[in-house]
Amino acid sequence: MKILWINPIGNDGFDLIIGKMLKESARDGTSLDVVSLPNYDGIVIGCFYDVGLREAREVSKRAVVVAPCQASLVFATHLGNSFSVLVGRRKWIPKMRENIHMYGQGERLASMRPLKMGVYDFQVDLKKTAEVMMEEGRKAVDEDGAEVIILGCTIEFGFHETMQKELGVPVVDAVLAPFKLVEMFAETAGKFGWYPSRKWGSEAPPLQEVKEMALFENITSIGNLLKNDAIQ
Amino acid sequence: MKILWINPIGNDGFDLIIGKMLKESARDGTSLDVVSLPNYDGIVIGCFYDVGLREAREVSKRAVVVAPCQASLVFATHLGNSFSVLVGRRKWIPKMRENIHMYGQGERLASMRPLKMGVYDFQVDLKKTAEVMMEEGRKAVDEDGAEVIILGCTIEFGFHETMQKELGVPVVDAVLAPFKLVEMFAETAGKFGWYPSRKWGSEAPPLQEVKEMALFENITSIGNLLKNDAIQ
Amino acid sequence: MKILWINPIGNDGFDLIIGKMLKESARDGTSLDVVSLPNYDGIVIGCFYDVGLREAREVSKRAVVVAPCQASLVFATHLGNSFSVLVGRRKWIPKMRENIHMYGQGERLASMRPLKMGVYDFQVDLKKTAEVMMEEGRKAVDEDGAEVIILGCTIEFGFHETMQKELGVPVVDAVLAPFKLVEMFAETAGKFGWYPSRKWGSEAPPLQEVKEMALFENITSIGNLLKNDAIQ
Amino acid sequence: MKILWINPIGNDGFDLIIGKMLKESARDGTSLDVVSLPNYDGIVIGCFYDVGLREAREVSKRAVVVAPCQASLVFATHLGNSFSVLVGRRKWIPKMRENIHMYGQGERLASMRPLKMGVYDFQVDLKKTAEVMMEEGRKAVDEDGAEVIILGCTIEFGFHETMQKELGVPVVDAVLAPFKLVEMFAETAGKFGWYPSRKWGSEAPPLQEVKEMALFENITSIGNLLKNDAIQ
Amino acid sequence: MKILWINPIGNDGFDLIIGKMLKESARDGTSLDVVSLPNYDGIVIGCFYDVGLREAREVSKRAVVVAPCQASLVFATHLGNSFSVLVGRRKWIPKMRENIHMYGQGERLASMRPLKMGVYDFQVDLKKTAEVMMEEGRKAVDEDGAEVIILGCTIEFGFHETMQKELGVPVVDAVLAPFKLVEMFAETAGKFGWYPSRKWGSEAPPLQEVKEMALFENITSIGNLLKNDAIQ
Amino acid sequence: MKILWINPIGNDGFDLIIGKMLKESARDGTSLDVVSLPNYDGIVIGCFYDVGLREAREVSKRAVVVAPCQASLVFATHLGNSFSVLVGRRKWIPKMRENIHMYGQGERLASMRPLKMGVYDFQVDLKKTAEVMMEEGRKAVDEDGAEVIILGCTIEFGFHETMQKELGVPVVDAVLAPFKLVEMFAETAGKFGWYPSRKWGSEAPPLQEVKEMALFENITSIGNLLKNDAIQ
Repeated sequence: MKILWINPIGNDGFDLIIGKMLKESARDGTSLDVVSLPNYDGIVIGCFYDVGLREAREVSKRAVVVAPCQASLVFATHLGNSFSVLVGRRKWIPKMRENIHMYGQGERLASMRPLKMGVYDFQVDLKKTAEVMMEEGRKAVDEDGAEVIILGCTIEFGFHETMQKELGVPVVDAVLAPFKLVEMFAETAGKFGWYPSRKWGSEAPPLQEVKEMALFENITSIGNLLKNDAIQ
Repeated sequence: MKILWINPIGNDGFDLIIGKMLKESARDGTSLDVVSLPNYDGIVIGCFYDVGLREAREVSKRAVVVAPCQASLVFATHLGNSFSVLVGRRKWIPKMRENIHMYGQGERLASMRPLKMGVYDFQVDLKKTAEVMMEEGRKAVDEDGAEVIILGCTIEFGFHETMQKELGVPVVDAVLAPFKLVEMFAETAGKFGWYPSRKWGSEAPPLQEVKEMALFENITSIGNLLKNDAIQ
Repeated sequence: MKILWINPIGNDGFDLIIGKMLKESARDGTSLDVVSLPNYDGIVIGCFYDVGLREAREVSKRAVVVAPCQASLVFATHLGNSFSVLVGRRKWIPKMRENIHMYGQGERLASMRPLKMGVYDFQVDLKKTAEVMMEEGRKAVDEDGAEVIILGCTIEFGFHETMQKELGVPVVDAVLAPFKLVEMFAETAGKFGWYPSRKWGSEAPPLQEVKEMALFENITSIGNLLKNDAIQ
Repeated sequence: MKILWINPIGNDGFDLIIGKMLKESARDGTSLDVVSLPNYDGIVIGCFYDVGLREAREVSKRAVVVAPCQASLVFATHLGNSFSVLVGRRKWIPKMRENIHMYGQGERLASMRPLKMGVYDFQVDLKKTAEVMMEEGRKAVDEDGAEVIILGCTIEFGFHETMQKELGVPVVDAVLAPFKLVEMFAETAGKFGWYPSRKWGSEAPPLQEVKEMALFENITSIGNLLKNDAIQ
Repeated sequence: MKILWINPIGNDGFDLIIGKMLKESARDGTSLDVVSLPNYDGIVIGCFYDVGLREAREVSKRAVVVAPCQASLVFATHLGNSFSVLVGRRKWIPKMRENIHMYGQGERLASMRPLKMGVYDFQVDLKKTAEVMMEEGRKAVDEDGAEVIILGCTIEFGFHETMQKELGVPVVDAVLAPFKLVEMFAETAGKFGWYPSRKWGSEAPPLQEVKEMALFENITSIGNLLKNDAIQ
Repeated sequence: MKILWINPIGNDGFDLIIGKMLKESARDGTSLDVVSLPNYDGIVIGCFYDVGLREAREVSKRAVVVAPCQASLVFATHLGNSFSVLVGRRKWIPKMRENIHMYGQGERLASMRPLKMGVYDFQVDLKKTAEVMMEEGRKAVDEDGAEVIILGCTIEFGFHETMQKELGVPVVDAVLAPFKLVEMFAETAGKFGWYPSRKWGSEAPPLQEVKEMALFENITSIGNLLKNDAIQ
């Protein structure tokens, strides 16, 4: 199956490494190579703000669109009664909390804890990042009563395994969660015909409007990067 | 991976046919054979009331437990803005509506429409069942504004493909939805260590209590049936 | 009037003492003796998880079914603006919180405080239990702003009077609350014909299904115990 | 026990007949005679808008205050999954709906149906009133799915028994419901010490403020009426 | 335009100074002089409990009625994501919290912090009041994450400017907020015909009932005071 | 004061006429001329989807940002108990309903009625548009119980006065509502220092990020149009 990962942020410094990570976690037969928009089997919004999710869904044709926050909640609600989200900065909290409520999981949110780090800080000093995440994760479990931890930024990748071993609760990675979910949706679209609805509010906008939005014009496709850079 | 399908209803008349259906939709390498409880990779509650979901989750050890209603909502919320549930009898509505609200998706529920059929009626006169389902499904879309249809009983299997072709919206089958979801959870448990939390409210009850509950004592395992009956 | 108290837990060690307590608090003419199911005037689920409440209501015929958590909320919402629940273990919290939200009183819940004691611990060292309950009760009032305390387990009986004297707020006992409420419902059933609805979702299930559920088969009737043991 | 029934409407034309009705439904030993405010065991707000409920609760000293709408919901939620309220005029709906939501029962509200009659119309042409109530009650059950009917005005008294016989669902009378509930609270106050909380938001206002509010100054006490008119 | 400010509290000690404050903040052409009820362009309930708001709206004829709490929320929700309310006493919290939820802004409420002062204390020792407000305001921002502060009593006037300078977040004054809002509504009523709805629940009550309520009988009109006292 | 009206849709065919309309409804001294971003007193998102509202608020510096849907709700909630929104197409409903719930007014929404017209249809055949709007508006009032009508598209301008005269309920225009509200906020910003919070979630993003977003780069400023076209 063919998956498109959209990086909604201009900066493409993390695309290669995220691409590698996805390759390694993919099922046999799942491809990240990209040819053209109409042929995608699934699309992932690559940002935990789930930026443009609704818009992408309207123009995605037959591809199910998945986003990190909504996808992480699918895992969290099946693995425990409550969860905490470790975000980068306090600034991120209101919008992400609003999304979590909109997705219907506000009651299960134990806390949102800021790590006091920006997007570009997580992957600089890995030891320090790990320490801060562990500290806040532990407080989330012990003080806030979280039964599951969600890493609230796609760039917080690479830490979940160590964390869950030490904390003793599942730690959901915001890259892997939407990727495995989109694989499943791509499969069920093909096998059972469960393509996105195109009725009422899910109707695609008039072609003219889509062109004006130019949503996919400047997408830096991780898949293309991977092809060019010959990741095996 | 090894999946357990629990039939919480005493009557086992549909186990064989549901087992066949799951076999056909499984990935390569997914097995429904059952050896013993501790080794399950995933468990499905086989009833759209999601009966005993919370209790099963407490005693499931390392297996993620999935249930038809909650699983169908994962599909419905990714395929459209709103959904209707086609239930058997009006009697089923309050409990199922309560579950849908509890899962946080009450706002997206367009309607619940009774087919005026009991569990044992769906598979008797297939032509008549199809007609009734199509009629109520069409009303759900046209009058109630549903963008997705959910079949609100595991025994409403076998109809979703014809329906979605005619109605033009995705129709989520309550057998296939939890099965594909549990496959994914079984995979992510193994690959990423995302096993159920056992912290706070997810802690397993004392062994003594579990024995008294005798939850799994009389399970008619579909897997065993399948093995015995040599389904290929 | 005739009241049935169902002990949903296998262990019957507390039945006698709870029976005595109910006898003493009963109105003149209220009887706990039990003859046979069809003649009950009221039924109480004897566990603060309100286990099987919905199912019991479907098969209760003309008896109103009352449960400790839901009943305690009737008292708490008439006695103050907010309440805290003193539960045994942190493990109990998610399910009980879910119930409180489902009953529509989530906004009034100030806190749930675990006493770090199991069901079988409350009645062992009464002095120690009283101390722990007082300490957490005081924190519930002073730190969490509770105006009423609910004792979140039927086995936390025997403490409410001392507590409310010292804390200066009403302390609702989870045995007495449902008992007085069911007495009222038994009376209004007889006087005004306010029997449980049997329409739509409240319709009784087919007789065959009830037999399979065997809900009342092994009930240890407190009433029978009382009769046999000649409590006066 | 001593109960005070407050008639918040200036007009006292219905006090005598409501008083008679309460006398007949009272337990032995329940008295409606009134001596002075401090000695009440319970207080009822005699209007389905639950007017001044919060204020009355603050100044009620040791008397639990009960109101028709909130009390009727206690009955409705124990007798079925959903209810409809038969109100007089469409004008009444928004405020009453707001109250029902505030009491946490908005999810269970099937519908509010106006009878197109004012307070003073219900008791004029009893045959016509009965017809209108039966017609709207039937629609509430059949079209809106109500399992219980609540009569949404204290002056809709005298109809519930005929209605519930014909409709086959319980019909909650807004006079009897709060009265039986306040009897129970008066009893549990005396027996278990469950008096209203006077902590935090339930603290009584300063005496000076109460005087200025003059809440009880011009109350037409039904109890006094009854005493004077020598109802037996 | 002509604005009426209703002081629902008996005591009129603050009317003169609030009147002055409003005069200074009024647009050119806004008058607070009062002639008679029917000619008002706008009405303000002068108490943060928003006492009698619904009733006043029913009888206000063509005047839009505004209340401090609801009006402050209009400002707070346009100036930030979350807000805290600084109330006088802990006693005030439940009713005000209930209002905030009823107005639909419960999710944005970061905290309610009591200043431990009564209505008559705020304007006695201004330096001490300022200190306490600053201390609680700072905690609201730093500990509770408030992005905006609302002063939860009309008598907390005179402090917002100093506070917002020191705290670095907007501080909404409960006198100025409803006043500027009512000016706008008075203008849009005249310009666009946006007078209060008089349909369904907004229908005015029968004249007889209004007379019995005598809502406006003893209003101490600030406007009249101002006229008499010749404020310039 | 200086107001910026952002037209988030590429097409600028309606800018001139909306600009004229705003000029006519402005207070003396309100200017729509635009010089540069930093000096705005207020900003309006010119689309009823409230597109980009959160993002615009983060980068608006000292200007309060107002949007048509949120602003219309301020009017609707002060003019009546419930409202209906007349939208163009059924497709618009889910996103707009989601916004209304997010703004906390979901409980007051009587209905959303599609006019079956697109954005570019409203101003083509004015007589036909008026007829359709009147028909749906009447149904909203009579069948859905709406006390106020909101016109759910900025291009539905020019109809509210005739409609409210015929329907007898206030009809809120989605151009005028945000414009008058932003005028008020611009005034209170200057007079009382009520500028947008820049704390926590309201903190402005790093300058670099704003440049990358290029939010205001291609804005077709109505103000500039007006200046150039010399509207008086």
